[in-house]
Parts: sequence; C-alpha cells; structure tokens
Amino acid sequence: MSAPTFRPARREDVARIVELLAGDPLGAGRERFEDPLPDSYYAAFDRIEASDGNVLTVAELDGVVVGCLQMTFIPGLSNQGADLALIEGVRVDTTLRSQGLGGQLIEWALNAARARGCQAVELFTHKTRTDAHRFYDRLGFEQSHVGYRIKL
Amino acid sequence: MSAPTFRPARREDVARIVELLAGDPLGAGRERFEDPLPDSYYAAFDRIEASDGNVLTVAELDGVVVGCLQMTFIPGLSNQGADLALIEGVRVDTTLRSQGLGGQLIEWALNAARARGCQAVELFTHKTRTDAHRFYDRLGFEQSHVGYRIKL
Repeated sequence: MSAPTFRPARREDVARIVELLAGDPLGAGRERFEDPLPDSYYAAFDRIEASDGNVLTVAELDGVVVGCLQMTFIPGLSNQGADLALIEGVRVDTTLRSQGLGGQLIEWALNAARARGCQAVELFTHKTRTDAHRFYDRLGFEQSHVGYRIKL
Repeated sequence: MSAPTFRPARREDVARIVELLAGDPLGAGRERFEDPLPDSYYAAFDRIEASDGNVLTVAELDGVVVGCLQMTFIPGLSNQGADLALIEGVRVDTTLRSQGLGGQLIEWALNAARARGCQAVELFTHKTRTDAHRFYDRLGFEQSHVGYRIKL
C-alpha cells in the first residue's frame, strides 16, 4: 500500500465522507447516503468550515478519499488551563481495514493536536464497537472515562 | 435555598472557578488554586472567550458563584449533520451538594444546547466518579460510550 496523505476536507468530499460514515453498522442506521445528498450534510460542512475550533480531515490514497476524522480543539480551565482535542467521526474504507491506515490517521491527529498545543486527546466510541476498543487500546489510549449521551 | 441564576463567566470569576475545579479529589491533584493564580488559567479563559464554540457558565446563589460548567458546541457531518454539545468541568460547591443545584445546572445546559439547535449532549465522567454516574443516570443520560483519553 502506498503512503496515505492527509488534507482538510473540501465541499466536494462531503458525499464520500457520508459514504464512509454510513459504511458501518451504527452509521448505516442513522445516515442518509443518497443522491442527491440531503442538504443538512452540506449545511453542517459549512458550519464546520466557519468554526475556528473544528477541522474535518480526509486521508487520501492514490487520489481517492479512504478515511476521515474530525477534530475539535477545546480550550478549558481544567488541568491548569490545558487545551484538549476531541476526535470524532473516525472512519476507514471497509475494504482497506487492518492495513495500518487507521493507525496512521490517528497518529496524524495526535500530531495535529500537539501542533495546536493540546495536552490531551479524548474520544468517545460506542460501547458496542469492540473492534474500535482494541484499536484505541493498542494505540495507547486509556479507557479512563464513561461516555454519557442524551438526545434533545 | 433561593433559585440559582446562570450567566457567562467573567475574568474576575476565574479564581473562584479554579477553586471549584480543585474542590474534588481528582481536581485537587491536578489544579493549582494559589494566590496569585497561575497565568495559565487566565490565558485559557482568554482562549475560551475568543472561541466561537465555547461557553463557560457560572451558577450564582445570592450573588456568590456556587457552580460552573463549560459547553462546547460542535458541528459535524454524523447523524445527518446534527450539531452536538459537549459539557465539561461541571462543579458544584461541595457545601451545597444534594440540594438540586447540579440538576438545575445541567437542565440549564440542556436548554442552552436546544437553543443552539443541538440534537444531543455528550459528556465524559471519570470512571471513578460513581456519584456523578448516578447523577447523570438519574437525569436521563445514557452510558452509551467508552471515553478514551491519551496524554500528549
């Protein structure tokens, strides 16, 4: 496999990113990967672009988008005023799993967080994603917290 | 107990917020509630103020700051482009626990998230905070995720 490259997502990547988000059991039940794509995805992309703390990134392999993740950079008073980064929406093309691409994507994200001066990175994974748990355990993340969610 | 009021934190609240953050077993080990307060807290407050997606809020009772929390409003493509809010740094003065103040603070935050158009609220609590787990369980939050963290 050639080396992946990482770049900020562009508006023309949105459909492919939604395809990636929809490409797993949890995502399949909640996303709408349709043609035309629902406007709500483009509106969300525009809000990400307009916000100073959010970066949506894609991984490319030979010119094809094969992975994605979003980072949110969060200032806060806790830990003596340490910034942290939250990683969300991590996906790798299902046909390219177990080839190290996910690990490279997360390593890229950790370096991006260091470059922004963050002192920690946090992420939620659904309780049922046991493969993801093994993945993050292996990368040195600690299962230190319980992740709570409430729908509004 | 009179009814609490909620307002955005001001720079002159920073020391009191750090006192609240330091006022529990986990916070005591990592914060520096000193006089003068380390500059890193004020620098973090300024970054929160300058960011468009973060709101630091205090609860006041009879003119005294008795609680705090931070909210981060996060746009994203997942869930058909639904915004979510992350709650962090929730504290209530230890002398005022179990009087409903924490519940009112979280209800205020859920309403603030609704007002911003968020469709869900998420938060991390440390695995060891079993009192907090009961608190969020009771408020209708679901322990749906594992919370991972890595130090940089």
